[in-house]
Amino acid sequence: MTSIEQLRENALKEAKKKIKESVSKDLMIINAINNIEELDKSTNIIVSRLREWFSLSNPELEKKYSDNEVFVKKALEELNGKKTPTEMGAEFDNDDKKAVVALAKSATDLVVAKKELEVYLSKAMESYCKNINFLAGTTIGARLIREAKGLKRLASLGASTVQLLGAEKALFRHIKSGTRPPKYGHIVNHQIIMNAKHTDKGKAARALADKLSICARLDYFKGDFMADKYSEELRKKFN
Amino acid sequence: MTSIEQLRENALKEAKKKIKESVSKDLMIINAINNIEELDKSTNIIVSRLREWFSLSNPELEKKYSDNEVFVKKALEELNGKKTPTEMGAEFDNDDKKAVVALAKSATDLVVAKKELEVYLSKAMESYCKNINFLAGTTIGARLIREAKGLKRLASLGASTVQLLGAEKALFRHIKSGTRPPKYGHIVNHQIIMNAKHTDKGKAARALADKLSICARLDYFKGDFMADKYSEELRKKFN
Repeated sequence: MTSIEQLRENALKEAKKKIKESVSKDLMIINAINNIEELDKSTNIIVSRLREWFSLSNPELEKKYSDNEVFVKKALEELNGKKTPTEMGAEFDNDDKKAVVALAKSATDLVVAKKELEVYLSKAMESYCKNINFLAGTTIGARLIREAKGLKRLASLGASTVQLLGAEKALFRHIKSGTRPPKYGHIVNHQIIMNAKHTDKGKAARALADKLSICARLDYFKGDFMADKYSEELRKKFN
Repeated sequence: MTSIEQLRENALKEAKKKIKESVSKDLMIINAINNIEELDKSTNIIVSRLREWFSLSNPELEKKYSDNEVFVKKALEELNGKKTPTEMGAEFDNDDKKAVVALAKSATDLVVAKKELEVYLSKAMESYCKNINFLAGTTIGARLIREAKGLKRLASLGASTVQLLGAEKALFRHIKSGTRPPKYGHIVNHQIIMNAKHTDKGKAARALADKLSICARLDYFKGDFMADKYSEELRKKFN
């Protein structure tokens, strides 16, 4: 083997090793949150189709349960058991029933998969970034990591950037066309902001982002667990 | 009870009965084909996400199997069994594996549900409109019924309309902006048209639509089974 070939082989080996090592917990967390959102979307579409189909046989039941999970459960119960008398619904024969059951089952399967991923995500976040996980909550925390493309970069972002992660569209609309600037990104769904008075929401978002930014640094540089204190502080101030 | 109240009650009862009777096999077929398409779409999205996630552990396998179903099977085999050595993939721990397996399983669950619906649809079409089912095939036949909003209306449409069912967008673009008119709608996926020579495709579509239109009338007015002869004729002419 010539030395050039040798060199090339070594370079290839090195590159493959780098690729192998580049897979971090960040990537696992980002994939998990993406998939949870995707499963959620698919479930919603399938359940809305199930509602349409099932309501041919029992339009009253469809109206009664607006919660998707409850509706699927009730529909399956009825399809598998005795039909409750209904004035407007058509009679399904056995084949019809089996088809609708197949659709309903696929919706419940998706919900089961989503729940498994949620358990996985919360465990992974707990061990990878316990401060963020505690203060932001699993879902919001994972979304922040996704938007920042990893914990390392999240730790390096300023608090004002963390505050707006997930609101990029509104932010650029603001910069481009001078609409009002967004107050918050993904953290909009956070309890502290939801419970804050309307006039305090911006202030609460700023304070929360501040603490989240500190949490990210604590987590990345293996600091102590401080999130419970921060959470307490914020709750006292705004709720 | 006054006679007005009596009248109102009777009218309500009558309306509910009408609603009950309005549920026809058409509606079941339309729901089934819609749901099959929806399950297909969801499966594709989930599998593409699975590919992304799984390829962190074994990028080589992901490239090797482009067929979704085969890929999911192979991925599940690997996740549940021994890991084949891979130069670039990262090591998944047990939790990681369980999460990816949950996602992969949800994809297979959707495929199972889809197959059940396909069996149901083909059985329903066979008993409801055997001529259409034979000549158009189950999927295309069901789509034609959906676009026509029922077998009755499909039987009343002219052959040239049947030819373009499913190409409404292209047709109106043609009428509005003078682009080239579409040659076919849903029947584009039909064997006869796919196998026809490039220059014959328009002619084949017209001939096929002609026969399909006759089939729809045969089915709606409970005529004989003629589709096999038509199919033979068309095949001789264009394939």
